[in-house]
Amino acid sequence: MSIISRRVYRRHELRRLLEPQTLALIGASQTPGALGTRTLANMSTFPGILYPVNARHVQLGGRLCYASVADLPEAPDCVVIAVPRDAVLRIVQDCASRGAGAVIIFASGYAETEGAQAAADQTALRDIGRACGMLIVGPNCVGVANRPHGLHAAFAEFSPSPAVGARIGLVSQSGALGLGLSQAAEHGTAISHILTCGNSCDVDVADYVSFLADDPGCDVIALVFEGLEDSGRLVEAAAIARAAGKRIVACKLGDSTAGSAAARFHTGTATDGPGGYAALFRAAGIISVTRIEALLDTAAFFAKAPPASAPGVAIVSGSGGTAILATDAAARHGVPVPQPGEATAALLRVAIPAFGSPRNPCDATAQATRDPDSLRRCADALLADPQYGALVIPWGRAQPLALLTLLDELAQRHGKPVCLGWMSQRLEGSGAAEVEAHAHLALFRSLDACFDAISQWHGLASAMKPA
Amino acid sequence: MSIISRRVYRRHELRRLLEPQTLALIGASQTPGALGTRTLANMSTFPGILYPVNARHVQLGGRLCYASVADLPEAPDCVVIAVPRDAVLRIVQDCASRGAGAVIIFASGYAETEGAQAAADQTALRDIGRACGMLIVGPNCVGVANRPHGLHAAFAEFSPSPAVGARIGLVSQSGALGLGLSQAAEHGTAISHILTCGNSCDVDVADYVSFLADDPGCDVIALVFEGLEDSGRLVEAAAIARAAGKRIVACKLGDSTAGSAAARFHTGTATDGPGGYAALFRAAGIISVTRIEALLDTAAFFAKAPPASAPGVAIVSGSGGTAILATDAAARHGVPVPQPGEATAALLRVAIPAFGSPRNPCDATAQATRDPDSLRRCADALLADPQYGALVIPWGRAQPLALLTLLDELAQRHGKPVCLGWMSQRLEGSGAAEVEAHAHLALFRSLDACFDAISQWHGLASAMKPA
Repeated sequence: MSIISRRVYRRHELRRLLEPQTLALIGASQTPGALGTRTLANMSTFPGILYPVNARHVQLGGRLCYASVADLPEAPDCVVIAVPRDAVLRIVQDCASRGAGAVIIFASGYAETEGAQAAADQTALRDIGRACGMLIVGPNCVGVANRPHGLHAAFAEFSPSPAVGARIGLVSQSGALGLGLSQAAEHGTAISHILTCGNSCDVDVADYVSFLADDPGCDVIALVFEGLEDSGRLVEAAAIARAAGKRIVACKLGDSTAGSAAARFHTGTATDGPGGYAALFRAAGIISVTRIEALLDTAAFFAKAPPASAPGVAIVSGSGGTAILATDAAARHGVPVPQPGEATAALLRVAIPAFGSPRNPCDATAQATRDPDSLRRCADALLADPQYGALVIPWGRAQPLALLTLLDELAQRHGKPVCLGWMSQRLEGSGAAEVEAHAHLALFRSLDACFDAISQWHGLASAMKPA
Repeated sequence: MSIISRRVYRRHELRRLLEPQTLALIGASQTPGALGTRTLANMSTFPGILYPVNARHVQLGGRLCYASVADLPEAPDCVVIAVPRDAVLRIVQDCASRGAGAVIIFASGYAETEGAQAAADQTALRDIGRACGMLIVGPNCVGVANRPHGLHAAFAEFSPSPAVGARIGLVSQSGALGLGLSQAAEHGTAISHILTCGNSCDVDVADYVSFLADDPGCDVIALVFEGLEDSGRLVEAAAIARAAGKRIVACKLGDSTAGSAAARFHTGTATDGPGGYAALFRAAGIISVTRIEALLDTAAFFAKAPPASAPGVAIVSGSGGTAILATDAAARHGVPVPQPGEATAALLRVAIPAFGSPRNPCDATAQATRDPDSLRRCADALLADPQYGALVIPWGRAQPLALLTLLDELAQRHGKPVCLGWMSQRLEGSGAAEVEAHAHLALFRSLDACFDAISQWHGLASAMKPA
């Protein structure tokens, strides 16, 4: 496919796609399990006008059904095309003629397939859109959801999001990964948007990042992608996000030679090969995670953390074993864990039993898990010490945590994040969702993910310092 | 503390401790929340004779209560000491005099504390035991559980274990980590034993490994520890496990300089410093995980996997994105992902849609997730190919999995493990526990953990080959 460079789409250019007033669904159906049936059901929360389109029905789901796009009483903002591949090209042409703002194409069998014809068919779709300014999402995608707008234009069932916690705008080239990640909502992670683009013949992940950067409905952007036709647009989008004070946390797929080859067969994407994006991420201030399971915890941390005020990290725990694990993880990621000064140590000494350790890591002993005041006093002393920019508390056991409000208040008062390292293998156990719901507490189910995030947070702080 | 070397305890030497017929609890109580109350409640499943000991009660929980160990009608096999530190030494002496087989000491304030007296007090406890052959667990520990035996001699509440799946015997020096890990039972991981030892003044993790190696009640041993007085005993225990055909998967704490220092203040343990155990693990055939969150998934894999028959791994997925992630993870861990031969590729081609990839990784497309027969045929073709020793299936979404029985049968028939990489962030979602329950399917919530395990599995296969 030839590379035709353009600027990244800005939020106002994407509003007919992502904040439509009118939505049409081609291939709307009531056949159980059909793509058009599932998509129609997902659209039930849409607050604007919805037009089902299917020549075989007069009415669907209580709504008047239209025979074709041409028959719609107005030009639709966004058209979702849930029909087999063979019918797609003609429908896209019809949408362009009717003045649609955007189309979303689910069908597969384009640039991700072997053969010149498949790639040419994808280019043909894009050219129709380009000629009239109609946005195209896909082909080979599962759709989009913009929760604050009530939009769920996808055949995939995205889980409803909790109302509290850092609101993560999720951008995923892969629909399946977007779907799998979005299921974090079911254990308490707040996910405001799920934006997928599959083969990205027109709208790509950089455009979505640009949209979310200026959208007040999310606090941070989590990005999963294989590659970009023009990586310069991601740099542009990152600049928009930086200007808006919003962080981007990215997981780049296809970062190995074999993985890169696999990506060509997935979405027809050239991935720039191993390590190609590392320099771009650094330059653009994009946080990067290697392990996708760390993506959402890391994104929520960056939504909650103020800028780092000091490179040192304090660790306090009710268990010596978890304190050691945290110290090891800090060392693996080059995060300093300095010893407290004498004043801080004196405060710790009176807060914990004699058999605890008034050091860093501070083993407050199991007493701290039973006596919230002991842990609160330790946390207060460590957060007040200017050599510490953050506090990490490895938490051994899934249980309701009475002291979360106290910790959240301390984090806010000291202007420093408090990270709870969830050590229990009851991964969605009691207490976890409550941590996520607090504005100044970050939850990490891996201490390595926690200190990797802190290490990059420090890196950002250094990069932002005036020269 | 001086090092007095001894052989590792064998299973028959540890039976009065871990398979007692009679159990006494010093400090038994009915005060809500008290250590002795919680421990007594945990002992309710004990099938042998239980003697509560507390001079202030005549009867506790429907059982006759004794004033002291000396008053017991017989020499107890195992005595749990749930009293404050000051009373411990005298009681341990009484237990020795009464002919107890073993004591478990919860109290803290020994070698993990600064000062020579605390360390000397711990040595005094050990010396009492050594003089009469009475085993000592602790001090500074939370106790032990041996589920097949109905023993729960701990103040910590360990979650009940499901009845199916690979039975993991968990050995943890740290009580809090043992407790946190054991909570995996609540989402479907089968945990047969939880054996903690805290300061390990006598019985240590090597002894527990030796016990579990010869205990038919567990299939694999998961080990968490900071250090050992005599690491040679771990080598001995590993040899016993190898002879029994049982794998050990270890997570070593204190593997950084700062973490090692912290360990001295936790259980008074010298950890051998950074990297000190890597060579020992290799030599002893012990599998090692750096990230504790990978411990139990890895242990279950090794319980289920037959010896590796080939170094290549096949990947099949219903989603191209997850297939790429798996390929990247394989590359990070040096696991080869060779392309299928022509015969295998021909079988794949007819099993998947034209827009899928009949390669390795095999993108069977979303159709495979809706059509179990498509995925079954792919899996069968790949498992039959002699260049593949295992099959990895990244699974995108938490949902009931209709094809698990089919996959389990294929894995068994081909004598190769099938690993499901759980890509959903619904970490305990629908389908996960069902995977764990199957005898030939391994669940990994991290693709890195999956390929790290496979890489070490290959290493074991090479090491076991005749020269």
